[in-house]
Amino acid sequence: MRNCDSKKLRPNLIPKTLVPENQETPIHLVSGDIISDKLFYRRNHFPYPSFTSSFYFLPIEGQVHISKVFSLQEIYSMPAKTIKVVLECSGDKRELFKPKVYGEQWGKGAISQGIWKGVSLKTLLQYTGLLDNAKEIVFEGYDNGRRPDSNKLYNFSRSLPIEKALDPDTIIAYEYNNHPISFKHGFPLRLIVPGWYAMASVKWIKKIIIIDKEFKGPFQDIDYVYYPNQENDNGKVPVTTINVNSTIQYPLNMQLLHSGVYEIKGIAWTGEGQITMVEISIDGGQTWNKCKLTSSFEKHSWIRWNYTWNALKKGEYTIKSKAADSKGNVQPLEPIWNRKGYGYNAIDHIKVKIE
Amino acid sequence: MRNCDSKKLRPNLIPKTLVPENQETPIHLVSGDIISDKLFYRRNHFPYPSFTSSFYFLPIEGQVHISKVFSLQEIYSMPAKTIKVVLECSGDKRELFKPKVYGEQWGKGAISQGIWKGVSLKTLLQYTGLLDNAKEIVFEGYDNGRRPDSNKLYNFSRSLPIEKALDPDTIIAYEYNNHPISFKHGFPLRLIVPGWYAMASVKWIKKIIIIDKEFKGPFQDIDYVYYPNQENDNGKVPVTTINVNSTIQYPLNMQLLHSGVYEIKGIAWTGEGQITMVEISIDGGQTWNKCKLTSSFEKHSWIRWNYTWNALKKGEYTIKSKAADSKGNVQPLEPIWNRKGYGYNAIDHIKVKIE
Repeated sequence: MRNCDSKKLRPNLIPKTLVPENQETPIHLVSGDIISDKLFYRRNHFPYPSFTSSFYFLPIEGQVHISKVFSLQEIYSMPAKTIKVVLECSGDKRELFKPKVYGEQWGKGAISQGIWKGVSLKTLLQYTGLLDNAKEIVFEGYDNGRRPDSNKLYNFSRSLPIEKALDPDTIIAYEYNNHPISFKHGFPLRLIVPGWYAMASVKWIKKIIIIDKEFKGPFQDIDYVYYPNQENDNGKVPVTTINVNSTIQYPLNMQLLHSGVYEIKGIAWTGEGQITMVEISIDGGQTWNKCKLTSSFEKHSWIRWNYTWNALKKGEYTIKSKAADSKGNVQPLEPIWNRKGYGYNAIDHIKVKIE
Repeated sequence: MRNCDSKKLRPNLIPKTLVPENQETPIHLVSGDIISDKLFYRRNHFPYPSFTSSFYFLPIEGQVHISKVFSLQEIYSMPAKTIKVVLECSGDKRELFKPKVYGEQWGKGAISQGIWKGVSLKTLLQYTGLLDNAKEIVFEGYDNGRRPDSNKLYNFSRSLPIEKALDPDTIIAYEYNNHPISFKHGFPLRLIVPGWYAMASVKWIKKIIIIDKEFKGPFQDIDYVYYPNQENDNGKVPVTTINVNSTIQYPLNMQLLHSGVYEIKGIAWTGEGQITMVEISIDGGQTWNKCKLTSSFEKHSWIRWNYTWNALKKGEYTIKSKAADSKGNVQPLEPIWNRKGYGYNAIDHIKVKIE
């Protein structure tokens, strides 16, 4: 007797490029709130780095009272913080922009969530102190290589303003879902910056440098910047906080369905505050219905929602989802186009046909 | 020392739906001409079937002189035929149609190729004979379930006209790439119909019935039919032969590249005759250049092609590929839109930016 369905099929990551590795989470096929390490989307700028992890130390230097080099054992022994965090690539949903923009063509799956454990950066900085002129904190990763726009070698580096760096939820993480962070996701130490798009959450931290001016590395000042204009850089604004957003997981776009009762379901998330309402429209946005929020709120996590649809009448339907948060942000009808395609958060929509 | 690149990363299938299982080949990431069983796209209408393969027999009945039931051992002992065949889902590239059409939103990866071994259907039919009124041959698969448009239970069934059925290359296959066909791809016996879109290549063959009229099953007369009109069924034509087609595998669409020399590469294929030329345009179709065909022609296989591009000047480029075959078919500039989205074969195109 053969029955393949008895062995539950698991989805894979959706491969975009292999070197550097960029793969997205099959977000329409995940249920639950915790994405396994294997299904966590992978976003790299460079090939995976080589470094001697058995001889790993974390230096903190620059505008500090005392430079310090921390061993992993020291870090593991400090008071730990464990938080459920949604990480979203700022290029998530980039392929939906019209006109299209260059860069990785992420669908809706450059987003994942799970449980990170580590030490607050604030705790570490209490050992070094900060000089009065400290302005930003730079995190340099071990990953390095050439950019398409330059022949120079760069390490992936990003900075945070002091205020965000000192938020107790900004952690130097060493565990994901109760296991050491896997190499692909930043072992041994990864910065986790809840509420910001995930370019801020630097992997494979090599060193931390406190500086007295604005950091101008290319991943801070060229990439991860909103450019509102196609032709020039006027009005450029750095990418920081995650926009309020939602994704319909089921049904699938352009799906054919028999008439019946369906649970429309999805997720919603925001960078600051919390999701207060998700509404669904079955008629292309003319009327809206409140969804049931089916997972309890945690400060930095997505929320799951669903809506029971009695799909009795044959025909075509445009289904839309719209989330709002406690800061008064609501998903816009149209995305805010920008030249590099960051922060897409327009009202999500799919079409289905009842046959 | 950690170096993840030393372990070569393999791409996965791109998951669309899990039940029934529909996953596409990451065609932009495969090289070579033989797709492994693991990376062969999966297209199912129903959950995987259950049947007792240890007690498997293949009946041939209907308008024949003598009905016969073949054991697998009998089939294995007959003269075998081994052919390299491209199988393409007729919905391949469906997501590119504008206006969009309902159904699985296949990208460019509902296509795979490998080596099938089996016995010609013609050989089997010599044991049963065909009555003079035999008109079509129906292949019923073990897979069954409900369709979105009906409450009835159907097995997946398709027919071939006698002439195509008797083509010596139409085989009842039992091996793929020198191994027994895997269960997911039709074990123990799968019909392989070279040159036709792959809905014809019925998996898990349950029985073969010779009939004296046109077969009207829903996968023959409702699905897998070109409907030129949105609003009515006028001008409907069954889907049969694979259209001349090509796909650019590298670079990727919307990729950012440094100036330099690049090998643009891809595949081209057709259902009848052979690919005679692939041309590439770097300027959006204004001028065309002949590609080098880098794999030798075999009757039912795709051909690989490449073109060396000296990309020195910064700017945006629209790259197009256009294949022609020995029957005089050339890829059209625009796809032939049809309501169910079959047979997309417009000139392929991508955009890249040299920085």
